[in-house]
Amino acid sequence: MYLARVYVTLKPTVNDPQGLTIKGALCNLGFTSVEDVRAGKYFELHLAETDFAKVEQQVTEMCCKLLANPVIENYRFEIEEVKV
Amino acid sequence: MYLARVYVTLKPTVNDPQGLTIKGALCNLGFTSVEDVRAGKYFELHLAETDFAKVEQQVTEMCCKLLANPVIENYRFEIEEVKV
Repeated sequence: MYLARVYVTLKPTVNDPQGLTIKGALCNLGFTSVEDVRAGKYFELHLAETDFAKVEQQVTEMCCKLLANPVIENYRFEIEEVKV
Repeated sequence: MYLARVYVTLKPTVNDPQGLTIKGALCNLGFTSVEDVRAGKYFELHLAETDFAKVEQQVTEMCCKLLANPVIENYRFEIEEVKV
């Protein structure tokens, strides 16, 4: 059994209105040292596989096909073996 | 200048309909080894501060007040010093 942690972020050149709104809200709360906020997505996936290389290949495919939009988003992931 | 990476996840006992939907979609795409998906949020914050301890304290406060809902969500973060 493997656990994959997937992080999806907007590419640096893409506008992030959600991040801007959060930044504004943090400033209103008194956190004036916040210079920039970028919002992204985080997924934890459990896979019933035994082969690390296969998991790596599958997660890459999942990111390209569903979890991230490769046109405007970057993704990275970590894979960890977990005991059942 | 510090960069804080904040990860927000639903507590394990809280239902995650978004994760279930993603799991269903991945199964439909042929990734049948996916056993569980949990969806969360990811934020990157740049802070114009010079003191690590202060950043740590501020980010904790931001998480409790705005970035996460402590009733149903867990959060964790990493802080890294970055060159301007």
